[in-house]
Amino acid sequence: MTKIQFADRADRKTVETGDAFAPKFDDQGLIPVVTTCATTGRVLMQAWMNAEAIERTIETGEAHYFSRSRQELWHKGATSGEFQLVKEFRTDCDQDALWLVVEQKGGKCCHVGHPSCFYRSITVNIPVSDTEPPKLNTDD
Amino acid sequence: MTKIQFADRADRKTVETGDAFAPKFDDQGLIPVVTTCATTGRVLMQAWMNAEAIERTIETGEAHYFSRSRQELWHKGATSGEFQLVKEFRTDCDQDALWLVVEQKGGKCCHVGHPSCFYRSITVNIPVSDTEPPKLNTDD
Repeated sequence: MTKIQFADRADRKTVETGDAFAPKFDDQGLIPVVTTCATTGRVLMQAWMNAEAIERTIETGEAHYFSRSRQELWHKGATSGEFQLVKEFRTDCDQDALWLVVEQKGGKCCHVGHPSCFYRSITVNIPVSDTEPPKLNTDD
Repeated sequence: MTKIQFADRADRKTVETGDAFAPKFDDQGLIPVVTTCATTGRVLMQAWMNAEAIERTIETGEAHYFSRSRQELWHKGATSGEFQLVKEFRTDCDQDALWLVVEQKGGKCCHVGHPSCFYRSITVNIPVSDTEPPKLNTDD
């Protein structure tokens, strides 16, 4: 049961330039969130929040998400100890995305064991092949 | 008409740790992408790509997205001149999100006139109100 109240989204200008939080949720009740590291500036992960995750993040200052695979509130670090302490919590112009800047406890955000989930890159400025997928380079 | 080929997603371990690009698209054929500034490290915007946008981004080295509001390929900067030159293009462990590091031409990513779309913050570590929405602070 959440108590958080959000502003109305009826007026586009107010949403884009006003001072009231009016997030846009998709038809699953979710909004995408990108999480970056306060120390390195790197993107650590991309995840999703519902209203409850937003409420818990604001009230505790620790990152909470909604796990789509488990369909439940996900307090990051609750099982691993790798909590994320929120340094900044931001929304974008049309309020359909969120950005968390965090201190990542333990230093490894990714369950595969890397500091960032985004540990592989794709080469650009090359023709794509019609027979082979682009190759990923591990370079973290 | 796209020619890009993606790898199969049947094997979770290969998706999470392998070297073949196997992006996961949602039921609209889209994948979320976060774009950060190569100079400041800030998150500039959050958007979406389809297969064609990925192909055009790889081949040209300039950010292409899929506009959900216009339902068409969106070459960022094509009308404004504010192109995004791709410095890094990354995917995450389960390959359901992308990260672009760009040089933002013109310096203003956001259509409202700010350098970043995320120009407003939400205060954390406070109780949420059950009558008023959280207040946004403009601080870019």
